[in-house]
Amino acid sequence: MPGNSFGEFFRITTFGESHGAGIGVVIDGMPPGFAISEEAIWANLKKRAPGQSSVTTSRQEKDHPRILSGTLNGQTTGTPICILMENEDVRSADYDPAMFRPGHADYTYFKKYGIRDHRGGGRASGRETAARVAAGAVAKILLHHHGIAVFAHTISVGNVHATRFEQSAIEMNPIRCADPEAAMAMVRAIEKAASKRDSLGGIVEIIAEGVPPGLGDPVFNKLDALMAMALMSIPAVKGVEIGAGFKVAAMRGSENNDPLTTNGFLANNAGGILGGISNGEKIIARIAVKPTPSISLKQQTRRQSGEPAEIRISGRHDPCICPRIVPVAESMVAIVLADRWLAQNAIR
Amino acid sequence: MPGNSFGEFFRITTFGESHGAGIGVVIDGMPPGFAISEEAIWANLKKRAPGQSSVTTSRQEKDHPRILSGTLNGQTTGTPICILMENEDVRSADYDPAMFRPGHADYTYFKKYGIRDHRGGGRASGRETAARVAAGAVAKILLHHHGIAVFAHTISVGNVHATRFEQSAIEMNPIRCADPEAAMAMVRAIEKAASKRDSLGGIVEIIAEGVPPGLGDPVFNKLDALMAMALMSIPAVKGVEIGAGFKVAAMRGSENNDPLTTNGFLANNAGGILGGISNGEKIIARIAVKPTPSISLKQQTRRQSGEPAEIRISGRHDPCICPRIVPVAESMVAIVLADRWLAQNAIR
Amino acid sequence: MPGNSFGEFFRITTFGESHGAGIGVVIDGMPPGFAISEEAIWANLKKRAPGQSSVTTSRQEKDHPRILSGTLNGQTTGTPICILMENEDVRSADYDPAMFRPGHADYTYFKKYGIRDHRGGGRASGRETAARVAAGAVAKILLHHHGIAVFAHTISVGNVHATRFEQSAIEMNPIRCADPEAAMAMVRAIEKAASKRDSLGGIVEIIAEGVPPGLGDPVFNKLDALMAMALMSIPAVKGVEIGAGFKVAAMRGSENNDPLTTNGFLANNAGGILGGISNGEKIIARIAVKPTPSISLKQQTRRQSGEPAEIRISGRHDPCICPRIVPVAESMVAIVLADRWLAQNAIR
Amino acid sequence: MPGNSFGEFFRITTFGESHGAGIGVVIDGMPPGFAISEEAIWANLKKRAPGQSSVTTSRQEKDHPRILSGTLNGQTTGTPICILMENEDVRSADYDPAMFRPGHADYTYFKKYGIRDHRGGGRASGRETAARVAAGAVAKILLHHHGIAVFAHTISVGNVHATRFEQSAIEMNPIRCADPEAAMAMVRAIEKAASKRDSLGGIVEIIAEGVPPGLGDPVFNKLDALMAMALMSIPAVKGVEIGAGFKVAAMRGSENNDPLTTNGFLANNAGGILGGISNGEKIIARIAVKPTPSISLKQQTRRQSGEPAEIRISGRHDPCICPRIVPVAESMVAIVLADRWLAQNAIR
Repeated sequence: MPGNSFGEFFRITTFGESHGAGIGVVIDGMPPGFAISEEAIWANLKKRAPGQSSVTTSRQEKDHPRILSGTLNGQTTGTPICILMENEDVRSADYDPAMFRPGHADYTYFKKYGIRDHRGGGRASGRETAARVAAGAVAKILLHHHGIAVFAHTISVGNVHATRFEQSAIEMNPIRCADPEAAMAMVRAIEKAASKRDSLGGIVEIIAEGVPPGLGDPVFNKLDALMAMALMSIPAVKGVEIGAGFKVAAMRGSENNDPLTTNGFLANNAGGILGGISNGEKIIARIAVKPTPSISLKQQTRRQSGEPAEIRISGRHDPCICPRIVPVAESMVAIVLADRWLAQNAIR
Repeated sequence: MPGNSFGEFFRITTFGESHGAGIGVVIDGMPPGFAISEEAIWANLKKRAPGQSSVTTSRQEKDHPRILSGTLNGQTTGTPICILMENEDVRSADYDPAMFRPGHADYTYFKKYGIRDHRGGGRASGRETAARVAAGAVAKILLHHHGIAVFAHTISVGNVHATRFEQSAIEMNPIRCADPEAAMAMVRAIEKAASKRDSLGGIVEIIAEGVPPGLGDPVFNKLDALMAMALMSIPAVKGVEIGAGFKVAAMRGSENNDPLTTNGFLANNAGGILGGISNGEKIIARIAVKPTPSISLKQQTRRQSGEPAEIRISGRHDPCICPRIVPVAESMVAIVLADRWLAQNAIR
Repeated sequence: MPGNSFGEFFRITTFGESHGAGIGVVIDGMPPGFAISEEAIWANLKKRAPGQSSVTTSRQEKDHPRILSGTLNGQTTGTPICILMENEDVRSADYDPAMFRPGHADYTYFKKYGIRDHRGGGRASGRETAARVAAGAVAKILLHHHGIAVFAHTISVGNVHATRFEQSAIEMNPIRCADPEAAMAMVRAIEKAASKRDSLGGIVEIIAEGVPPGLGDPVFNKLDALMAMALMSIPAVKGVEIGAGFKVAAMRGSENNDPLTTNGFLANNAGGILGGISNGEKIIARIAVKPTPSISLKQQTRRQSGEPAEIRISGRHDPCICPRIVPVAESMVAIVLADRWLAQNAIR
Repeated sequence: MPGNSFGEFFRITTFGESHGAGIGVVIDGMPPGFAISEEAIWANLKKRAPGQSSVTTSRQEKDHPRILSGTLNGQTTGTPICILMENEDVRSADYDPAMFRPGHADYTYFKKYGIRDHRGGGRASGRETAARVAAGAVAKILLHHHGIAVFAHTISVGNVHATRFEQSAIEMNPIRCADPEAAMAMVRAIEKAASKRDSLGGIVEIIAEGVPPGLGDPVFNKLDALMAMALMSIPAVKGVEIGAGFKVAAMRGSENNDPLTTNGFLANNAGGILGGISNGEKIIARIAVKPTPSISLKQQTRRQSGEPAEIRISGRHDPCICPRIVPVAESMVAIVLADRWLAQNAIR
């Protein structure tokens, strides 16, 4: 199937370009009888919206969601839910459309489709993730009903690493870091990079609590495999790990195996997933987020016509995308969990 | 859909348990007119087979593949190809079926299905990956015809890291490492862990050469997203990264962006993928492989009935699974590439 | 997957209710580079719109389509195309929401979802088919480029049967019948039934010309199997047949087999499909359309609470839905053909 | 996806050719804990097997099924079930491979794939349906547990129509007709056609009892739409109708609407399905079966090279396929119902 749908039971299809009429999503498979509102969706979208602080772009995207279908008197009916966010503040692109921006998908979209949507990235723009967050907001309503909560936080930016975890701190700082002091250092690092017309990457961690054992469908639709796909599909993500992740490579079996007891596990190197199925512990994933490719430093590139060129990307861009990826990553994990929740229902 | 199929155009469905009648795969979507043989499939399976050296289990799995359908006179016809590897040397399980093995899927399968296949891991056994390798052998035939080659190699085991790359060295040592000296150190490290009844993890890198720009379908069926799912679905894999991977978290945009020239890119931090679409450079992925959970050290666990227990896993197990994951990882990437090759054909 | 998507390569997802904010469709898989416009879509929608004549409802649905995504400068880009038709003239329902209307889906939706969208049929309303026609308009653009044309016409209404075929006559009469005289008799029969507060059924035939041999994918995604699904999914359709259809039951093999010659077939009992694959002849299908269930005669029914009741359905309803099903049936066949056209591209 | 899979929750993938190593099916999605056996599958396959009487071919297909996976101690485990029927009595084809047989898929397979499997029809052979019957046997076990029964019977052959219904009579005559006297007339009609080297078509009716209201997923995965696809995908089927079927075309709304009462419906013109969802009444479908195309009368055709030719098909062929289609049609409906049963579970 073409690539704009994800999920099998809780299935989302996103559409729209950054500089077109709007961005939207159709959610098919949300069970009937759940209260949803544009306000609840907006509460999630606000976390992704630009213009929140010094470390995010000053662009304004109103993103106000309209629920076009699938509800009656504020309740889901079991029919598909379309949520549309019409674009506003659509400036014409701030860069030369005849050049390929390094680190962007301009070149590959052109090679794939033979056509180029130069209007700010088109479908490859991070703006598409607003549709994911809207869908994630709906998924969270289903999960919440079943006692499952999903959240994410920034654990590193550049060379600054969080060393403490205070969940309540996450929404108290612009970088969404659970370590208030590290958060301040992260902001300073980003401001410094931005002042040099450069950008920074980082790592975001996603945690799901309250997931019962049994979710995930071997051997390909494993919970971790679906999470890996969901998270890697987010623009700027270059790596995904579960539990101890890449650290397992240097561990011995006796260190890495989580001992079982009558009441669960004594450790969680598995990140809550064994054999692709949730084991009742916290689900833990981390993603590597690349530094924003849009920088105003001079870069070497080529024109569409093939000639070499230099480019300086002007315009309003995030010097570090981590805080705005937090709600997107949360949403993608929520969508996977909602999907596998429904999948597990079917097995009887 | 249930979880035993992967791919949309080149679609594989695997079946079989480690201690049942056999393991097999149905490949639907292989185009007609390609020569395939049991020998070509067997050549790939041999790399996955146990009993190859001191660092793999001494179990023997003949794995001889039978092509049951989909060919006429040694050529594919466009109809589904079923490949069956009947099980031989099936010993009854070497462990107490009433106990859950730490680090294994025993517990989660039991929680999911309410039934437990105690015969050596059932469907969660690494033996299922023989079916993937058989399918990968077919995918490689399609890719080879189009000038694409996929290979993998072990780049670290425990704390030993490869520092050189000689492709010809990979198949010359039991660990499938492209650095002959590191390979020797890796073997020693594994033997040492094994002598202590323990096991080691490692990192495997997968490289695809000759991939044209344009493969991969945004925004969810991105080439890297599908690779992440395919690779994370392999037993023991806890992390997947593309190109610079987790290193991007500490990089600046000006370092990470690969400059474009008239003839391609000057660097490959992107790992050959931008916006989820291949860019014509080498595709590079790495996976974190956990230490084999089956160790004969005493471990804390619980019985199916809930009581605490201690377990020592006897039997023949790989002290490090990296060399045998190499052909599986190659196969999963080959399957993704064959799938997206066919997907790209459709767009016209 | 939930049920609101159809097609695998040319994939449509419809959303919206008859009395909600609007009806829409997301089309994923339309190749890049095709000119599409709201006018071209509107030209198709007009054929489905109510209020066309004495034999259709006098309700007005403006149905003006907005293309929200997927195009740049009037050309498709390869990204998903969302088309939205906002609802206007939404009256509150003309019937008692506490009663189940005979012949309608009120009862079954209630039993399935436990919730009832009483606003004129909700998702089960024929209005959903506007989304299919919008998608069909896009499919036809692809097909037209490849020399394929799809059209439909009414061949019987009640006991009146067409006996001639003049393609140019189809759009010249309100019933879309290719036999001008039969058309007049059909209109009279409908007017007579309507005057008795009753309704009539009929048969619609769909023809596709210019389809090359080779489309359709055995053994389940056969061209006729997909057409059967596509056509049976249209509200009011109770039967689908291909070529000689139900007549084959009374034929001998020597009568039914279409002889082959160097240049094609001497007959077309097969309706252009053999073994689920197009054979190069005209594709011919017919559908049985039930009489509109909304009639103002008194009918026996029950209330949601279970008590028996009598119902007279007031409001503006089509006394025969055939002429308005014509563009819907055309569209569904066009969608199947576009889908299988792209599928056939992949096989190489 | 390629065409050899059907179903989304109860998903079958068939493989194998008539004259290859065997025919098989992988069933993915059967819930754990159900007793299945090769004997139970064989009991269904026997009904499809050739050589049963004077009205079926004298070929012998042993079709003995082997369950290769998915069970433990005779119970399903939730993992995929592969059932293999190895081919025996494989004679080389009885006809000239360079000619296209009229009414067969030889020509279209050749046009689609550019390759021709001349060994008795390859994948287009009716023998593929053995895999469907094996899968249907498993589906019936699930349905039986939930109180649902599916059966089929022949209601016409040529011009002979059943006029009575005695369910117990179905398996008492070689044509599987519920009217014992009509059955005798059908047999005579077939024998007469066979004596003239010709064949006959007929109509088969499928009935499902005990289906609760609520199965089927609008707007495309409607129960009747999926049944239409499933049934039309059976070789030789040229039409599908539900309930009153094509008769609705000549009915008035007041006749066709089934009145509701407190306890159900007073009639069943709907065939148990309204708006694509089961309504609690019997599900009723009918299929038009074409006369077997393999006849030994001389027929006009062409060679693969394009030259005109005459063909007489020798060999052992069914002069009327209806009695052997009965178990296949039953199986396909059972598979759809099992699939939608599981789908309905997911909605909560």
